[in-house]
Amino acid sequence: MKLVNEKGNFKIIENTMVGDNVVIRDYCNIYGCEIGDNTKIAAFVQIEKGVKIGKNCKIEPFVAIGQGTELEEGVYIGANVCFINCRYPVAERDGKIDSEWKMEKTLVKHNVSIGSGAVILPCTIGENSVVAAGSVVTKDIPPNSMVMGVPARVVGSTDEFKKKA
Amino acid sequence: MKLVNEKGNFKIIENTMVGDNVVIRDYCNIYGCEIGDNTKIAAFVQIEKGVKIGKNCKIEPFVAIGQGTELEEGVYIGANVCFINCRYPVAERDGKIDSEWKMEKTLVKHNVSIGSGAVILPCTIGENSVVAAGSVVTKDIPPNSMVMGVPARVVGSTDEFKKKA
Amino acid sequence: MKLVNEKGNFKIIENTMVGDNVVIRDYCNIYGCEIGDNTKIAAFVQIEKGVKIGKNCKIEPFVAIGQGTELEEGVYIGANVCFINCRYPVAERDGKIDSEWKMEKTLVKHNVSIGSGAVILPCTIGENSVVAAGSVVTKDIPPNSMVMGVPARVVGSTDEFKKKA
Repeated sequence: MKLVNEKGNFKIIENTMVGDNVVIRDYCNIYGCEIGDNTKIAAFVQIEKGVKIGKNCKIEPFVAIGQGTELEEGVYIGANVCFINCRYPVAERDGKIDSEWKMEKTLVKHNVSIGSGAVILPCTIGENSVVAAGSVVTKDIPPNSMVMGVPARVVGSTDEFKKKA
Repeated sequence: MKLVNEKGNFKIIENTMVGDNVVIRDYCNIYGCEIGDNTKIAAFVQIEKGVKIGKNCKIEPFVAIGQGTELEEGVYIGANVCFINCRYPVAERDGKIDSEWKMEKTLVKHNVSIGSGAVILPCTIGENSVVAAGSVVTKDIPPNSMVMGVPARVVGSTDEFKKKA
Repeated sequence: MKLVNEKGNFKIIENTMVGDNVVIRDYCNIYGCEIGDNTKIAAFVQIEKGVKIGKNCKIEPFVAIGQGTELEEGVYIGANVCFINCRYPVAERDGKIDSEWKMEKTLVKHNVSIGSGAVILPCTIGENSVVAAGSVVTKDIPPNSMVMGVPARVVGSTDEFKKKA
């Protein structure tokens, strides 16, 4: 890994450890994080400080990955996916802008795919699981599980998905 | 408040009234609007002409706030939230690009929190209410109400949410 | 149509055929595609190579239109809409970053409106149909159909919507 600082045409990468063969497209806003080998990051992605992203991940456009989120290796994140790192967000506290929000963690394990438009509340998503597009994940997901819906429920294993992939 | 015009590196702010201690991150597109004291606006946010945003608000990435939308003080807007200002949008009318769409208003009152990925059709959201992440709000919401689902329904008060915040 | 290549302030348009009176706002990322006369593209939009967009379309912010997607004339795409061009996406295959994903096509026919926050899996959406905001479309939609929900189901015709538009 090497430390990257770049604020050039259409690209902001600050104080970030970047692995080999990483691809980062235009209009990104990435700072204080770590990105593993071969990972591909589309345009219009924000990754905040403290985030760790493993190798061989793919992240599609319009995704913000905030503090407290970790993606292991081989994770797919579809377009417009939301990671939430605070279940009870408020803007104002005692008449002032809030500065005390409690960060909660999300861990997305090896080989997980999260479909476009899904919303992920703080949780752990087990290895090889798949979150269907448009789902709202409110709690931990066991490994090898296909989940879908609002809120997301386990509807089976991911065997068929992985065969068709 | 002061009038801001800035088209510099990674930031477009045109003809906008900005209060004290406002924070606006990179890749924003903000024009002809008003932003109250202390409000924090993340990267990748668009705010259109005529919009009023109160003081002590927080707006997360990938949010477009169009004409006809007003946020009072202390409003939290999660990532990828959509505000809709026309219930019946069409692109073409009588074989030409549409230029007659009817703007409808949305008012988000004091201390409301709107979770990430929620979709808000034209409505009024009452003071202290909370919209759960991923909800689709289709009509007015009374004050102090927790709403969730597609379409969103009132599931209780926000007392517990506010305690946990 | 004329060929446009522009990588200037806040705008990336590469190798793209652009019709007359097309409007493309700031922070776009558009390459190798074709955009018909009068079409309006908001800020924060990505359009990838091979995409065809007809005349008189409107595309709102935070929309990525990937390879394999075609919009006919007069199509409205709301904010944060997702087009999915692979039903079974994975990031890693045999321990390496995936390079074999299978592209699937989506065709959006004449005069369709897709509401904000909708998620569109690979399919054909018939002429004059309307997808309600926040819907997840998982299969083909017949012409003149109003669909809504997760997953989206036909709930009626679009006669009333078109009258109110």
